[in-house]
Amino acid sequence: MVERDYYLAEAENLKPQLVAWRRQLHQYPELSFEEKETAALVAGVLEQLGLKVRTGIGGTGIIGILHGAKEGPAVALRADMDALPLQEATGAEYASRCPGRMHACGHDAHMAIVLGAATLLATHRRELPGPVVFLFQPGEELPPGGARLLIEAGALADPPVKAVFGLHVTSALPAGTVGVRSGAAMASADNFTIRIKGRTSHGAAPHLGADAIVAAAQAILALQSIVARRIDPVQPAVLTIGTINGGEKENIVAGEVTMTGTTRALNQVTRQQLEKDMREILAGVAAASGTEIELDYLLGYPPLINDARLTELFRRVAGELLGPGKVFELAAPSMGAEDFARYAEKVPAVYFNLGAAIPGEPPYPWHHPRFNINEDCLPIGSALLSWLAFKALADF
Amino acid sequence: MVERDYYLAEAENLKPQLVAWRRQLHQYPELSFEEKETAALVAGVLEQLGLKVRTGIGGTGIIGILHGAKEGPAVALRADMDALPLQEATGAEYASRCPGRMHACGHDAHMAIVLGAATLLATHRRELPGPVVFLFQPGEELPPGGARLLIEAGALADPPVKAVFGLHVTSALPAGTVGVRSGAAMASADNFTIRIKGRTSHGAAPHLGADAIVAAAQAILALQSIVARRIDPVQPAVLTIGTINGGEKENIVAGEVTMTGTTRALNQVTRQQLEKDMREILAGVAAASGTEIELDYLLGYPPLINDARLTELFRRVAGELLGPGKVFELAAPSMGAEDFARYAEKVPAVYFNLGAAIPGEPPYPWHHPRFNINEDCLPIGSALLSWLAFKALADF
Amino acid sequence: MVERDYYLAEAENLKPQLVAWRRQLHQYPELSFEEKETAALVAGVLEQLGLKVRTGIGGTGIIGILHGAKEGPAVALRADMDALPLQEATGAEYASRCPGRMHACGHDAHMAIVLGAATLLATHRRELPGPVVFLFQPGEELPPGGARLLIEAGALADPPVKAVFGLHVTSALPAGTVGVRSGAAMASADNFTIRIKGRTSHGAAPHLGADAIVAAAQAILALQSIVARRIDPVQPAVLTIGTINGGEKENIVAGEVTMTGTTRALNQVTRQQLEKDMREILAGVAAASGTEIELDYLLGYPPLINDARLTELFRRVAGELLGPGKVFELAAPSMGAEDFARYAEKVPAVYFNLGAAIPGEPPYPWHHPRFNINEDCLPIGSALLSWLAFKALADF
Amino acid sequence: MVERDYYLAEAENLKPQLVAWRRQLHQYPELSFEEKETAALVAGVLEQLGLKVRTGIGGTGIIGILHGAKEGPAVALRADMDALPLQEATGAEYASRCPGRMHACGHDAHMAIVLGAATLLATHRRELPGPVVFLFQPGEELPPGGARLLIEAGALADPPVKAVFGLHVTSALPAGTVGVRSGAAMASADNFTIRIKGRTSHGAAPHLGADAIVAAAQAILALQSIVARRIDPVQPAVLTIGTINGGEKENIVAGEVTMTGTTRALNQVTRQQLEKDMREILAGVAAASGTEIELDYLLGYPPLINDARLTELFRRVAGELLGPGKVFELAAPSMGAEDFARYAEKVPAVYFNLGAAIPGEPPYPWHHPRFNINEDCLPIGSALLSWLAFKALADF
Repeated sequence: MVERDYYLAEAENLKPQLVAWRRQLHQYPELSFEEKETAALVAGVLEQLGLKVRTGIGGTGIIGILHGAKEGPAVALRADMDALPLQEATGAEYASRCPGRMHACGHDAHMAIVLGAATLLATHRRELPGPVVFLFQPGEELPPGGARLLIEAGALADPPVKAVFGLHVTSALPAGTVGVRSGAAMASADNFTIRIKGRTSHGAAPHLGADAIVAAAQAILALQSIVARRIDPVQPAVLTIGTINGGEKENIVAGEVTMTGTTRALNQVTRQQLEKDMREILAGVAAASGTEIELDYLLGYPPLINDARLTELFRRVAGELLGPGKVFELAAPSMGAEDFARYAEKVPAVYFNLGAAIPGEPPYPWHHPRFNINEDCLPIGSALLSWLAFKALADF
Repeated sequence: MVERDYYLAEAENLKPQLVAWRRQLHQYPELSFEEKETAALVAGVLEQLGLKVRTGIGGTGIIGILHGAKEGPAVALRADMDALPLQEATGAEYASRCPGRMHACGHDAHMAIVLGAATLLATHRRELPGPVVFLFQPGEELPPGGARLLIEAGALADPPVKAVFGLHVTSALPAGTVGVRSGAAMASADNFTIRIKGRTSHGAAPHLGADAIVAAAQAILALQSIVARRIDPVQPAVLTIGTINGGEKENIVAGEVTMTGTTRALNQVTRQQLEKDMREILAGVAAASGTEIELDYLLGYPPLINDARLTELFRRVAGELLGPGKVFELAAPSMGAEDFARYAEKVPAVYFNLGAAIPGEPPYPWHHPRFNINEDCLPIGSALLSWLAFKALADF
Repeated sequence: MVERDYYLAEAENLKPQLVAWRRQLHQYPELSFEEKETAALVAGVLEQLGLKVRTGIGGTGIIGILHGAKEGPAVALRADMDALPLQEATGAEYASRCPGRMHACGHDAHMAIVLGAATLLATHRRELPGPVVFLFQPGEELPPGGARLLIEAGALADPPVKAVFGLHVTSALPAGTVGVRSGAAMASADNFTIRIKGRTSHGAAPHLGADAIVAAAQAILALQSIVARRIDPVQPAVLTIGTINGGEKENIVAGEVTMTGTTRALNQVTRQQLEKDMREILAGVAAASGTEIELDYLLGYPPLINDARLTELFRRVAGELLGPGKVFELAAPSMGAEDFARYAEKVPAVYFNLGAAIPGEPPYPWHHPRFNINEDCLPIGSALLSWLAFKALADF
Repeated sequence: MVERDYYLAEAENLKPQLVAWRRQLHQYPELSFEEKETAALVAGVLEQLGLKVRTGIGGTGIIGILHGAKEGPAVALRADMDALPLQEATGAEYASRCPGRMHACGHDAHMAIVLGAATLLATHRRELPGPVVFLFQPGEELPPGGARLLIEAGALADPPVKAVFGLHVTSALPAGTVGVRSGAAMASADNFTIRIKGRTSHGAAPHLGADAIVAAAQAILALQSIVARRIDPVQPAVLTIGTINGGEKENIVAGEVTMTGTTRALNQVTRQQLEKDMREILAGVAAASGTEIELDYLLGYPPLINDARLTELFRRVAGELLGPGKVFELAAPSMGAEDFARYAEKVPAVYFNLGAAIPGEPPYPWHHPRFNINEDCLPIGSALLSWLAFKALADF
């Protein structure tokens, strides 16, 4: 296994640079679609490596293309760039210097890792059996997200991409390990707003009004029947109403109630059924309650489906690189959502979790103000992505 | 007050006869529209009194007409004839001799009282300032009831009736007293059947069916909003779903549920709103649940509205006859229903409660297997009805 | 009917003064418990009439006592003083000069009428068979209201009051008429706040939270059963949930929902049942939904019960004063509430509607920005209150 | 692949016998725990093959033990014996001769296949590297089923069983193919009865009762929240209320409602949560509705979990026997239940589907009166089970 050791060793040598990049990005987090300084750093590195770089895609997105020894279909590696509107509480010396903004979802690490992979692959460009495309996308945290902007700009078409890899650092696995799942890996996430319009009246004369709050209660309970009765029980689905606001005063019958929420599904059939059933139920509740009900349904990210064959390749390659027992099979999909799903809609793709647990620390989840990573994962991630690109170009 | 004493004394003399009639009827109760022996007894008495008697109306109904000194508009006195499918448990020596049948609603007493009034008035026919009509109707306990059959047969038209009186014995008031209420006195009673048709499927695969039980639950709770939110709060109304039956087996999604129930209202506007709102709500629930819902709505008795002017006359006449403090004002209407309401729809009418409590006994309600009356009420009832007829002919 | 004409004629002479008072008050409306200038005007008039005047009661309330020819139990006449936080839209020349404040509930007229009655009765103090107490109360619009403050200050005790009269101008009846109802005339009004505490979680992982919005829906529908199933159908009651607010974000399971509302009842038994049933139901829903539910229940005004005997006196006196066909019987109670109910809890009282419709204008309801009155009602009101006081002192 | 061809060829030779057994059993179906003639046929064959046979287990169950060349842990092959209370409608010449009883779930085929496997393995007993146990169990269709009776009788203990195989014929796959799934393959199935006790009253006086039908509706909708909100969305679960019956008459408030239903889960944690959540919710609804609610919860079959390692062996062995593309991976578990799960609770087990579609016929599902099989599947099933037993004895 010459290559394995080679890539790992080279990546290890890069570690100080990877850590420096990651910490620089961590200290200056930028919100979705405002990743200006971030983009400048990324573009600078890619240009210095001699890649063909397109900037300003969807505002701040970047596409870097590394041409190898041969032309032909490419493999793409993807990083996301945006931070969260959150006050960091890690106490790290390299903590965010921007009050109320934090890289609490590991995108700083993702960028450093992909920049590392670009560095490694650029070094070996003469051995590369095809081009590699580096996707740095804005706005992963803000549906409808930045992926579609890169795709619309031709990121998967020129050169044609035959496989995409993406990763997410996780405090749930130790450094040196990965987790993956073939097929449905993450959920679609669509958001909705329900507006119920009744008719106000004095609270002592409900018969002169049409009570939007009672109608809302009927709607909420009727909507529970979608997941409970209407969707195939072996197809996971979620319908959450997250907010409700209505009425003016305690003694006035409420004339309007607004609710917002989110739906999740692991395939397009279930996803579409959720919207269809919501429309059917809300129309019925409107008729039953003498109110008008509007449903605004905003499609967010699709379900993220890992390609079965590419996942096989991933398991094999990661197993060789990381050694036995280091590639975990994720038992169940996540009902969370990820903009990476848009690439996977278009071409075979694999999205995997990269172990980044800090020994002795609680496994703070994503979006937690104390979320942090074990930086040992950085060179491992770069080596793995590089070698995946190499192997997928050769064998997929 | 010559007449008062006169009528009371004469009625008191009649008491053994009244008791005999009542006990005879009590021992041989007949169910709704099967009142054959009952009708024979009644017709016999009326004919013997020299009245013009029509029999077989609506099967077993009887109309007796007593012509007085003058022609002109008549006053009508009404009795109901049917018994209940109930096993008597009074232990009285004159208890029902028909197993599973009982005069547990006092119709035996009503007939004896009206026969007594016919006797008294026949005696005084030469003083009567107009004709008196005696209505003995079948099927009060079985909507749509017998009143409409008598009305269709011309009971209120030939001779034209200008006022109708009816009464109900009650264990809630002592003998020698009456209770009355102007305006809405008793409720309409309509019955309905709701049939929900969903689609069966295996209980483990609810998504292949349409669950009629969950739809029924949505319907039941949505229907609560009619009384709670849609009807003017100062207009009493009831919507009771009394039975529910559906489904085949614990592990099969129910394809059908049937519910039956009753509605009550004190005026026609509210009564009609109940049906209209039920139709609107059930149509909405059907749409929301993917089921079909049928509503059969059977109009029963209308609200019983006591005529304001005739009630004034009643209060005055009863007060004179019974003495001070014996005429109670009923604080609230009853949500029970009474076929007498159909006469009151057509002509001014008063329906009142006649005290019949047995001292030292619990006040068993109507339809109770131990319901019984204080027979002292019989001559009082006859005297009161007679004098009411006399006064209404003269003064109304 | 010497007195009738006398009082009416004298009141008619007072009309310019009554109109002047009313318009002065109308132009300078003051909100609940801030009736400073209002109180100064009222106190000035009463003092000028030679009454014994107590000021500053409950901040701005005033009690004036007129001693007549004899000592003994008094009769009280009540006016309310506060205006509403509303922008007037009548376009009248005497419209409110205070932006966002308006006498849209007729309290300006009530005060002018009671000042007029004080003037008339002061003129005739030597004929008065007892003392008359004039109650000008603050804060009728803001439960728990000002009545209780006057009562606590001894308004009904020194001298002891045996009867209280209050009135409300209404655009639903023509000037020269009144409407009244014996017994329950207006409703209690209590307010509540329901706080549901669940547990937040990511919207894609509802099983990790406890959904306060679904719990709220269960609570709302279960609460409908109080009016629909638990309260005697002939006892009007209302339970309105007027506002609902909960949740943080569309993709977070709601951890908290707050609802506010009001209940109405026409007697204390029903009123207390409403609170008791709410507590029972909400405790059950909390258990069924795995949430905590708090109920804050704030007692407002009690039901307003017109004394039966005093209402008889009112009907007779008003009938004599206004002539035949001018005293309407209100068919049904109102589910609105009125601070006057607190006086009626303590002593026999009658609250009536005084016709004030403006011919040719729509009957704008109370609290409407275009609400206005026919000022012809002012002398009629003063005359009626005066004569009611006179008669009640003499005959009640 | 000597053995493959060998077993297949030998099984093919057995086909007339297999068909004869299957048709004999098909014509004389016996209901759960009444499988007397069935047991006699099975025991006769096993005894004739020289096996050690135990009969009468759990009434009609049979355990046959074939000792091979060596002692040691055994492999077990299982068949189920009972038929369904159903009128056959296939029109086959060998259709059921017992009116109202039918082998509509393929147990006739299962028995013939296992008897065939016993025949094949008995022929090769000298080559067998361990004992094989043949389990013929009664009452698969009637939870709590017959498997537990065989287990209690020592079926898995003497000799100790290290692996169990079971199968189900299916019209969803062509003959010559199988379908399997590692891990959760079928669901637990528990049944429940909910009894709601309210209080009857006249339908016009709901406040005097406690409405069990409204309480049932609240319970039904609240129970929907278990699957919709409380259970991890990636863990399939079903809660079906299959029947509801309550109330006496349309105009009487219902004093009692009874509901029955079933729950399904794919693991013990979810299964236990279903019962726990039901108890919690029903206790809350009882408190909220003023009723008493009892829950009888009857544990049926556990989830059926195919052992991962044994499933690997199955895939390999079946692939070799049936050829490429004949072993299908079942994409999702079934929410149906199967008594085989009890064996799989105790020892590693694999339950698989055996293709039996009849070309040109609709794929009638199990329990359908026209369900039938392609008898080509019989020798394939016998060969596969035989070779699985051989291989599992050797390699597992």
